[in-house]
Amino acid sequence: LILGLSIAGGSVFAQTLTLPQNLIPLNSAEGEILLIGSQARKDYLPLSIHFVTQKNQAYCGVASMVMVLNALGIPAPEAPEYSPFNMFTQDNFFNNEKTTNVVSADVVSKKGMTLDQLGGLMESKDVKVKVYHAADTNLSEFRQLIADNLKQPGNFVLVNYLRKAIGQETGGHISPIAAYNKQTDRFLILDVSRYKYPPVWVKAEELWQAIATVDSDGGKTRGFVLVSRD
Amino acid sequence: LILGLSIAGGSVFAQTLTLPQNLIPLNSAEGEILLIGSQARKDYLPLSIHFVTQKNQAYCGVASMVMVLNALGIPAPEAPEYSPFNMFTQDNFFNNEKTTNVVSADVVSKKGMTLDQLGGLMESKDVKVKVYHAADTNLSEFRQLIADNLKQPGNFVLVNYLRKAIGQETGGHISPIAAYNKQTDRFLILDVSRYKYPPVWVKAEELWQAIATVDSDGGKTRGFVLVSRD
Ligand SMILES: [Ca+2]
Ligand SMILES: [Ca+2]
Ligand SMILES: [Ca+2]
Ligand SMILES: [Ca+2]
Repeated sequence: LILGLSIAGGSVFAQTLTLPQNLIPLNSAEGEILLIGSQARKDYLPLSIHFVTQKNQAYCGVASMVMVLNALGIPAPEAPEYSPFNMFTQDNFFNNEKTTNVVSADVVSKKGMTLDQLGGLMESKDVKVKVYHAADTNLSEFRQLIADNLKQPGNFVLVNYLRKAIGQETGGHISPIAAYNKQTDRFLILDVSRYKYPPVWVKAEELWQAIATVDSDGGKTRGFVLVSRD
Repeated sequence: LILGLSIAGGSVFAQTLTLPQNLIPLNSAEGEILLIGSQARKDYLPLSIHFVTQKNQAYCGVASMVMVLNALGIPAPEAPEYSPFNMFTQDNFFNNEKTTNVVSADVVSKKGMTLDQLGGLMESKDVKVKVYHAADTNLSEFRQLIADNLKQPGNFVLVNYLRKAIGQETGGHISPIAAYNKQTDRFLILDVSRYKYPPVWVKAEELWQAIATVDSDGGKTRGFVLVSRD
């Protein structure tokens, strides 16, 4: 791993890895312009006010689902540390049998999760879920489905991609998508490994290449999940 | 405590307390317009990408400082859960003597912190700190100093206020301020008790009334802290 000082668009991220030139950090002059100019950013504010860092290096999927569940505003379970308030957290996510029947916290902590497990875990929270493997769709449908979702409130997008394919270090990853900028054909990923990378604007075609990869766990292509209230 | 369903500007926050009419949630049509129309929002993106929920009900000050330290991008300590990456977290904040000499994690976990302790803890991280008690300033200087800061990158504002004075439940609280909207004379508070309230736009005069209150711990008025690189 190359730990470096990343200077992009005038912003300095002393903590995080150097971003490749193809990615535009949200926290830069250019990243801000793309956000303001986006016509498909209905999901940005609800997600950003619930932005969390994955609590361990295998919990990207759990952190991403917690953001979406809180952004959807559906009834949350108890969080003892916040009593009498309720909130979805990475600690209470697995606190029910319907969820652990899909896959346990222990297994996820060791191996992360596949796209199908992401869909199954999400569905265990009584939300409506549609799972798309890259092999069953194409770039044009991928772009259209996600851009449409990002124009609508009350539904959200999770993406499962191979970091290496967009120039990042290195393996499979999951995060929510928060906005689409049509002029530049870029999606905004709110990367939940905030210790590693800032949120980035990535070209739709590059993100497509990164989901059109095979996850050796399960042997199927990666992809994305659309989530809405049941 | 009245737990309710808050509907404001078309957004529903099923988890959080009902907001009084004087406060505008960021995550609403009106809140978004105030952000886009703000000429003093240089601190918004760096803070929002590091937005965290206080880890217990006394840690508002610690959560707020962690956001500012990560947003400043100064060298962070180890976070074992993210090795080999470094990041300020609410768990490693007190991992050095210079900090615990100001006040210990144990005391903060029980009693929270005063404005002077907030300043002292912040200073222990080798950043430049200026503490303003309400008794030593006035509404006009308060508005000017903070609005100016919010136009500049590389420095940040923490505010210590009495929730009751802005119509919230109920006691003393600390959070970062992320933006100022001049037309409406409102500040945006990124409230770190995300289980309780969304980020809100509050009138400068109301926030001033809420800092011009006496903290019974220490007997001095509340106020604000300006933080920049040393
Ligand atoms: Ca895997
Ligand atoms: Ca949507
Ligand atoms: Ca107190
Ligand atoms: Ca500033």
